[in-house]
Amino acid sequence: MDKKAVVLLSGGIDSTTTLAIAKSQRYDVYAMSFRYGQRHALECERAKQIAQQMGVKKHTVVDIDLRSFGGSALTGDIEVPRDRSHEEMGSGIPVTYVPARNTIFLSFALAWAETLEADTIFSGVNALDYSGYPDCRPEYIEAYQRMANLATKAAVEGHTELNVQTPLISMTKGEIIKKGSELGVKYELTLSCYDPDDHGRACGTCDSCLLRKKGFVEAGISDSTIYQLG
Amino acid sequence: MDKKAVVLLSGGIDSTTTLAIAKSQRYDVYAMSFRYGQRHALECERAKQIAQQMGVKKHTVVDIDLRSFGGSALTGDIEVPRDRSHEEMGSGIPVTYVPARNTIFLSFALAWAETLEADTIFSGVNALDYSGYPDCRPEYIEAYQRMANLATKAAVEGHTELNVQTPLISMTKGEIIKKGSELGVKYELTLSCYDPDDHGRACGTCDSCLLRKKGFVEAGISDSTIYQLG
Repeated sequence: MDKKAVVLLSGGIDSTTTLAIAKSQRYDVYAMSFRYGQRHALECERAKQIAQQMGVKKHTVVDIDLRSFGGSALTGDIEVPRDRSHEEMGSGIPVTYVPARNTIFLSFALAWAETLEADTIFSGVNALDYSGYPDCRPEYIEAYQRMANLATKAAVEGHTELNVQTPLISMTKGEIIKKGSELGVKYELTLSCYDPDDHGRACGTCDSCLLRKKGFVEAGISDSTIYQLG
Repeated sequence: MDKKAVVLLSGGIDSTTTLAIAKSQRYDVYAMSFRYGQRHALECERAKQIAQQMGVKKHTVVDIDLRSFGGSALTGDIEVPRDRSHEEMGSGIPVTYVPARNTIFLSFALAWAETLEADTIFSGVNALDYSGYPDCRPEYIEAYQRMANLATKAAVEGHTELNVQTPLISMTKGEIIKKGSELGVKYELTLSCYDPDDHGRACGTCDSCLLRKKGFVEAGISDSTIYQLG
């Protein structure tokens, strides 16, 4: 039987690279994206194109409403910060943190994995560049996996162990881009910007754009991203 | 400062009793319900009436789509079983099990708790009557709580410990009804049936109706539920 994996796919560099890694490990990939009232609904469109281009078995987009909880720049309540240094980004939890977002995303992935009888979930979380996000740390992922293995029918009946794979968790953005490029990822489709314009052009100044630029420089690979400011 | 708790409220006996217990512990209650493509959308209407009648601070209904995953009688794919004995109900995982449902529900509650700065989530899960549901067992709840305490900003910054309280986990349906009645719960508003008719009348034959009837008998309290066949 073919190995099945659910891959969380936002359409950014990290999740797209993670998808390529899952494919390289010969998984049949079921990609899952979320529309969650974020500013960049454009993400979903890119995720769809990426999923198609990379030959996933199925791509599903789940609608969830995180806006009712408020409290995050990514859901529209707070200004996106601009032109911050790497040190500023690294201190404290960013305002772009969405409460319990990864916990919610992984839980939908778990539901789909259970239905598909897939034993693996791939997430592109990264503990280096987003050191301020509690739900991107290895100890969180381990605790999630432990909980998931007590949550499902398959776990109780003892015929599958669920794995949450996070291959990028300790890689730098540069290493991620290098790895993805080796695997043939076309990064021009990916979108990192927290606040793109109506034409899908990246702002070039939010934390995510700055990390992306730095990543391409580190990887020694030219960045084909089209930025609004140049 | 007042203590805040998020209470998962389906509008059934268990979650309504749990809400009453949270109130008796002097929590300000933030009740959360879900519309998840279940057959009984009527549940949400009842939950709303219950929340209002019991004086919660706020009631929110979150729309989520579990139908895309399939695999459960409660989301419309499989027939609801009828007239089963208590032994039949207790063997194996029921077809009414929804993949990862409690994990998803708790994750939304966690997001809301974080935004509200509430340190407690109440869930009416019960390990006795629904022994077949993996995500109703104490070891699952403990693992969830451990994960939640690694997931949030509050947890990382060290100023709150999140508790998942499940006061009904080892109570029989009879004990739950007795407890709720002492706390003044009006059970006529609650809905247990997996398959009510258009007038909101319970079928009287699904597992949930059978457990409800048995519970009122055990509690020695008269059951004011209007059944289609009764």
